[in-house]
Parts: sequence; C-alpha cells; structure tokens
Amino acid sequence: MTVLFLMTPNITVPTMTREHEFNISVFYEDTDMAGIVYYANYLRFIERARSDIARELGLDQGKMLKDGRVFAVVRVEADYLGPARLADSLVIRTTHHKLTRVRWQFNQKMYKQKRLIFKALVTVVSMTTTGRPVPLPPEIQTLN
Amino acid sequence: MTVLFLMTPNITVPTMTREHEFNISVFYEDTDMAGIVYYANYLRFIERARSDIARELGLDQGKMLKDGRVFAVVRVEADYLGPARLADSLVIRTTHHKLTRVRWQFNQKMYKQKRLIFKALVTVVSMTTTGRPVPLPPEIQTLN
Amino acid sequence: MTVLFLMTPNITVPTMTREHEFNISVFYEDTDMAGIVYYANYLRFIERARSDIARELGLDQGKMLKDGRVFAVVRVEADYLGPARLADSLVIRTTHHKLTRVRWQFNQKMYKQKRLIFKALVTVVSMTTTGRPVPLPPEIQTLN
Amino acid sequence: MTVLFLMTPNITVPTMTREHEFNISVFYEDTDMAGIVYYANYLRFIERARSDIARELGLDQGKMLKDGRVFAVVRVEADYLGPARLADSLVIRTTHHKLTRVRWQFNQKMYKQKRLIFKALVTVVSMTTTGRPVPLPPEIQTLN
Repeated sequence: MTVLFLMTPNITVPTMTREHEFNISVFYEDTDMAGIVYYANYLRFIERARSDIARELGLDQGKMLKDGRVFAVVRVEADYLGPARLADSLVIRTTHHKLTRVRWQFNQKMYKQKRLIFKALVTVVSMTTTGRPVPLPPEIQTLN
Repeated sequence: MTVLFLMTPNITVPTMTREHEFNISVFYEDTDMAGIVYYANYLRFIERARSDIARELGLDQGKMLKDGRVFAVVRVEADYLGPARLADSLVIRTTHHKLTRVRWQFNQKMYKQKRLIFKALVTVVSMTTTGRPVPLPPEIQTLN
Repeated sequence: MTVLFLMTPNITVPTMTREHEFNISVFYEDTDMAGIVYYANYLRFIERARSDIARELGLDQGKMLKDGRVFAVVRVEADYLGPARLADSLVIRTTHHKLTRVRWQFNQKMYKQKRLIFKALVTVVSMTTTGRPVPLPPEIQTLN
Repeated sequence: MTVLFLMTPNITVPTMTREHEFNISVFYEDTDMAGIVYYANYLRFIERARSDIARELGLDQGKMLKDGRVFAVVRVEADYLGPARLADSLVIRTTHHKLTRVRWQFNQKMYKQKRLIFKALVTVVSMTTTGRPVPLPPEIQTLN
C-alpha cells in the first residue's frame, strides 16, 4: 500500500466515479395524452436528483436564495431514448464535477430497470439573483 | 321601468355583472394519459384569468411581491363537468367581488364552445409574504 | 370495555378509520415566485397519495385505461391553511370511502411536521373514457 | 444581383427562411421561487410553438394519436441566456426542416423584447405509439 502511494503520490479519488442515485415514481401528473411522460417533465425529474445532491453536500438552496444566490441552469443536452410510463420506477444516476470556478456540470442518466431511457448533460452557473456569476459555494469548490 | 329608474336615481351597474373573459388553448403539456386535461391544470388555467383581471385593474403582482405582498389562495371549490382535450379552445368567464376587507372571491366558469365544463369558486386573501392578512389593494377596495 | 364488546359482537373496524400515509418532498419545480408551493401543485401532491391507495388496493390504473376505464375527479373542495416551502417534508393522510356505486371519496390532509397546512375533499367517479359512469371496481366495492 | 437570379432561374425561397412566430405570456404557474421561469417550463413554451406549426401545416395531433402515431422528442439542446419573469411577453421564433425521412428538426429562439433569452435545437421522430419510427406525414415530407 505504502509503495503504491509512493508510486502515485498525487493520486486522488476522482469525484466523477462517485455516482448519486435517486428514485422516481411516475404519477398521472407526469404523463401526457400519448401515455408517456411528457418530455419537459424529465427535466423536473433530474432536477430533483440535483437538488438531492446539493442537499447531501450540505447546501440549503432556500437559504442560498435568501442570500441572493442561485444555481441557474445555463445549458441542457438531453437525449430521450425510451418512454417512461405510469407507475414506472425510475432510477437517476448522476455524476457531477466543477467545470470552472462558477460552473457545475451534471451527467445524468435515467434507467427503467436496466434500460437507459434518458440522459442529459446539464450545466449550472452559480450566480446572484441579479444574474452576476459568483464562485461556486465552498462545498462544491472542494470537489475534484 | 322608467319609474324604477326614477326611484333609484343613483343606480350603478354592479361589478358582479361585469364578466371577464379569458381564452385558453389546450396543449400537449396540459393533458394526461387519459387523453384529457389533468385535473390540477384547470387551476393553472383559471389562475391565468385571475392574473389577467389583476393586471386589468392596474395591479402589478411582481411589484406587489417586491413590496412583500401577495394574493394567496385560501379556498377552492371546483366542479369538473366535462373533459377538455388537446387543441380545445376554452373560454373562462370570471366574475369577482370583494368578500371582506382582506378577501377577494372569484366565480370562474370554463366553457368549451357553449358547454360549461368546469366551474370554481376561489377565495384569495391579501397577505404579507410572512402570512399576515393585510387590506386588499385600493384597486380592489373600490370594487363593490 | 368487555361489556361494550359483548353488546356489539359484530363490530368491525370501519374503513374510514384506516388512514393512508404518503410522504412528499418539495422541490424547486413545485414552488412559485412567492417562494411557496404553487396552489395547483397541492392537487398534484394529493393525487400521488390517491394513486398509491389505488395501487395498494391492487388496482393498475394503466391497465384500467387500456380497458377503457378511468377515475375522473368530479369535485374538489380545498382549503389552504399554511405554506409549504422548498425542501419541506410533507405527510398526506388520507381516508376514503365508497360514496355511491360509482363515486369514491377521499378526505385528504397535508401536514408539515404536526401542522395541518392543507385539506381537501375529493370525489372521483368511475367512468369509461367516453364519460359514461360505471360501477367502481370490485376492489373498492368491498370497502365499507 | 440580377445576374445571380438569371443564373439560378428555379431558385425558391428555402423553407428554413420562413420563421414561425408564437407569443407567450408568463404566468405565476411558470415561475419558481427564484422569481424566474422554471427551467423545464421553457420546454413547455417551445412545444406550444411546435404544436402551432403542426396545426398550421394541417396536422391534427389528436387524430394522429388515434391512428397510433406521435411525434416523439428524441433530442433537445437548450441554452438559457437570460431570465423570463412574471408578465413578460415572450416571442418564440422557430424555423424547422425535415432532417431525415423520419426526423423533423426545430431551431427555436425565445425573445424578450429584442433580447434572445433562450434557444433550443429540438429533434422529433415520427413514430408509432409502440416506438417504431415511421415516415413523417406528407405535410412535412413536402418541406425541403
């Protein structure tokens, strides 16, 4: 062990390999007349997972807002690969990393059983409520 | 008839008889897997009509909120009488009146062509964002 | 006590006393610019609880729909008693009973910690997707 | 200039240059606690514009669904460039083209006054409700 560390002195556990898991149940409200989850609602689902990550990191988004700070989504790339239907149990697996001093990026995949049905790359920016970018909170600065 | 008017020279058209009309188009987002508008979305629709009334009365709800004041819905009685479907053009007819010094009540009916498909009695309270009731804005105080 | 039971030998625990409990977490999607849960979203929340009850009773609403049958909400009486905010953990307590051969009624209360913040009386009708009332499924017929 | 036209006598104005315009008003339901439109709701807004395009082309999405066919969104690339707020009047400008025999692509831009606040590239696939791709309807096949 010691030898290993000597040989790779600057090794760190990469944040990207830690995966956050979040469960979603599909309800009537989420579906549309085509019988499947309405496309915009996938963004609601993955935001729940991101909020859970923020909470786990010790961030209180309500308090942040009172302090005049928010995470604003600035970019979403989403691929819809399969339908989700009423009563489906979905799992969202998210990895995330600090992209720049103000940008936080999430790689989010949604599974129905073992099948990948949706994936998205979401970038948020730490900003004031007036839209001025500010450094990410320390809780995220310390990530990878 | 003439006599009636002579006897009530200061008659005014009561506010209750003025009816506000608001048009809604149903989109995919509004429907659910049963092929009809999801029941909670009728409340979204009728709120649009109420907001339009507030705007017509000269109220700026964004500014109100900055001043720490909101209209909070405290009661809804809603009857669902017929389905609304994709691409339906709906008309919401609203009458409203000041119920008390802090309460504003709306009688809202939704029509699909001539057919009444939904009606609701909605009561809102003028309050601070901390939940303390405050008198309705002057624009509403002057309603009968 | 014993005497009481002797006098009412065929006593049964009435269905009404069984209470269904369902937990909700409030996410960003549920809030509005006033910082609290948007009023229509309470109806989304309580529908999740009703769907969970249906599921527990062995009903598959997806299959029902394929068979041309739905539960349609026909009336909601709702009282908003206090605000729900981001990250709140809410509990919905629901009792329900068969109102008529085609009507099913739910008494739903939402609590934030111990505080009642919302209550609703919701009536649904068992109907075909074309709107014709049909008897409630056997799973509900056998309720009280 | 004249020469150019002489040399390309059968020039036609390409479909891509025709721009569809759709107006949106922001209501309370669209906002979140940060005081701006919730990020998923931009997808609701731009879908209204696409549905309006389909309608203008003579497509009845309700009838399509009855015939077992839908337009399913398979990819969204979205950039959030500025906030939309309560009572904002937004304009969505959409150009679109047939991407392949089964794919239809939309370039959608949302403006607040003259300012571009959101843009998205959305790809939909013509498919059966069971998920099998089928050729786009003739109304779209004739687009360049």
